[in-house]
Amino acid sequence: MQVEMKPVIRVEKTKNSKISQVDFSNLPFGKVYTDHMFICDYKDGQWQEPKVIPYQNISLDPSAKIFHYGQSVFEGMKAYKDKDGKVWLFRPLENQKRLNISSKRLAIPELPEEIFMEGLKELLKVDKNWIPQSEGSSLYIRPFVFASGNGFHASPADKYTFIIACSPSGSYFAGKVKVLIEQTYSRSANGGVGYAKAGGNYAGQFYPTQLAVDKGFQQVIWTDDTSHEYIEEAGAMNIFVRINDTLLTAPTSDRILDGVTRKSILDIANDMGIDVEVRKISVTELVEAAQNGSLKEMFGAGTAAVISPISGFGYQDKTFDIPELKNSYAEQFKKHITDIQYNRAQDKFGWRYEVK
Amino acid sequence: MQVEMKPVIRVEKTKNSKISQVDFSNLPFGKVYTDHMFICDYKDGQWQEPKVIPYQNISLDPSAKIFHYGQSVFEGMKAYKDKDGKVWLFRPLENQKRLNISSKRLAIPELPEEIFMEGLKELLKVDKNWIPQSEGSSLYIRPFVFASGNGFHASPADKYTFIIACSPSGSYFAGKVKVLIEQTYSRSANGGVGYAKAGGNYAGQFYPTQLAVDKGFQQVIWTDDTSHEYIEEAGAMNIFVRINDTLLTAPTSDRILDGVTRKSILDIANDMGIDVEVRKISVTELVEAAQNGSLKEMFGAGTAAVISPISGFGYQDKTFDIPELKNSYAEQFKKHITDIQYNRAQDKFGWRYEVK
Repeated sequence: MQVEMKPVIRVEKTKNSKISQVDFSNLPFGKVYTDHMFICDYKDGQWQEPKVIPYQNISLDPSAKIFHYGQSVFEGMKAYKDKDGKVWLFRPLENQKRLNISSKRLAIPELPEEIFMEGLKELLKVDKNWIPQSEGSSLYIRPFVFASGNGFHASPADKYTFIIACSPSGSYFAGKVKVLIEQTYSRSANGGVGYAKAGGNYAGQFYPTQLAVDKGFQQVIWTDDTSHEYIEEAGAMNIFVRINDTLLTAPTSDRILDGVTRKSILDIANDMGIDVEVRKISVTELVEAAQNGSLKEMFGAGTAAVISPISGFGYQDKTFDIPELKNSYAEQFKKHITDIQYNRAQDKFGWRYEVK
Repeated sequence: MQVEMKPVIRVEKTKNSKISQVDFSNLPFGKVYTDHMFICDYKDGQWQEPKVIPYQNISLDPSAKIFHYGQSVFEGMKAYKDKDGKVWLFRPLENQKRLNISSKRLAIPELPEEIFMEGLKELLKVDKNWIPQSEGSSLYIRPFVFASGNGFHASPADKYTFIIACSPSGSYFAGKVKVLIEQTYSRSANGGVGYAKAGGNYAGQFYPTQLAVDKGFQQVIWTDDTSHEYIEEAGAMNIFVRINDTLLTAPTSDRILDGVTRKSILDIANDMGIDVEVRKISVTELVEAAQNGSLKEMFGAGTAAVISPISGFGYQDKTFDIPELKNSYAEQFKKHITDIQYNRAQDKFGWRYEVK
């Protein structure tokens, strides 16, 4: 048998835990941070010593390329605590792989799987008490890499910093979501970086989303930038549509993020015997289905929001409501996924990953 | 007459100038920074006290949104010193206006003109000795704004930091440039942020540019993301083409940056009586012109590189050389613009701006 090699993670614990100041019964999303963070720098062509250190500020030269050229990628994950206090992750290797897919497109050096996984596990062990146990709450985990090297030349940095920070969090959206199908602005280009979790993909959505919020919607559903006729994703979520009993979602592409929740839903739906079609969905088809009553459900799927039922959508100057449905696919999938995540059900797909 | 109001800029000078350590006869581009920087924070819905302070590191929480969502925009400008030691800027209000156009698209609060201009002038007065006087060198000026507020929720930050940093710099490119006309990757989407100087626009270009560099080119010429048939810009430069004696450049759009050097060239060319066409340029047309000898020149135009003659372009698997031309438009425009910038010629357009 081959010898298994693991990177040695140096751990420096805080002397001033902030945990007693946190109201765990009333957690916002992503605003409270744990006592520690995992950090690993890249310079001289290689990743340096990985460390768990007290959560602290980062000090950067004003010419650091992150400030100028948006060279950064991130991941979103969650840790769950079951009723026995055991700690679980959901398909963490999918996030680890996708981080490197994103990094490659952004000309950021890829991070070895062992550094990602061992760093993550070590951090979760040190900050185990920060993982909420109440229903609907979890520890949101944010791995990210950014260009920390300096220079005003528009070219990749020579130094990078990888960090995992954690935030005990409540839900991302409060209640149902109304979405606007975007007809003017776009999220991503053919041949662009839309499939990557690149920082710049998000900043570009803020202004059009604000315009949608001003009109009474919470999120934008992005369409292709050529014709605005095919729905793509919602920026922080992939989108599913149920027409009669068929579940539809757009295929991943260079413009659409390959969501972990999205692919888990597809596996669950297939396993449940639901008719699934992964294909382009036109706005015309969606509007027709809303008008003739065959549009039964729409929902978003992503790590932060898990599954977000959509109560209606705006298109041009019209709004289409989607009637409430009992025993909806959205409800069933959400129960199925969260039961696996919180170790309340059998895990036939092997998605649960214990941190011990 | 109305009372003119100017913001009060607090100035804190360094006690340890680094200027004696700098070799001004051998300056790289954007790697050496002056003794001071201008900084102004935004919080509680307004811009705070503007200051010139010693150039120093920035300290940020790991959850600062700049690390996660690419919410940043920048500008590029230069200051020139003439033979009498007077300091000049080139059309600075164009940069100030464009910064706010970019900011608006990225959901960043706009910065009042007076803070930008007074901060810039104050900084240049304090760091006047850092402005190189030698031909081809100048003080590169980098105004930028980034999201300094915290949170893992994908939404605009509640705090921002505006900084102007300066770097005495030599030329951006060494010699002529060979470009690859991109047929796979794209820089920007219809309805996207391509017209803004948004950080994320640059990071997305690094990987395709590396692939082009591996093939022997220095830069990529981006094409439209729908058909890859129309040339757009080169990422750090707008592109001009001369076919016979006609000067061509693509119209600005939501995908193409409205370059200050670009529009200055159009004004100069019109003034010189050159035939100018601002219209879509197809790759087919460019290849045909290269083959039949009517393609006389190609060059890039931008603040960092001023004017960069292009010696040839790659398209699919072929390379097309552009023969050297005496008294080229590129040379004439470069002389015209730099003569204005260094106060060596009459400034009939009123572009020069003295800092005193």
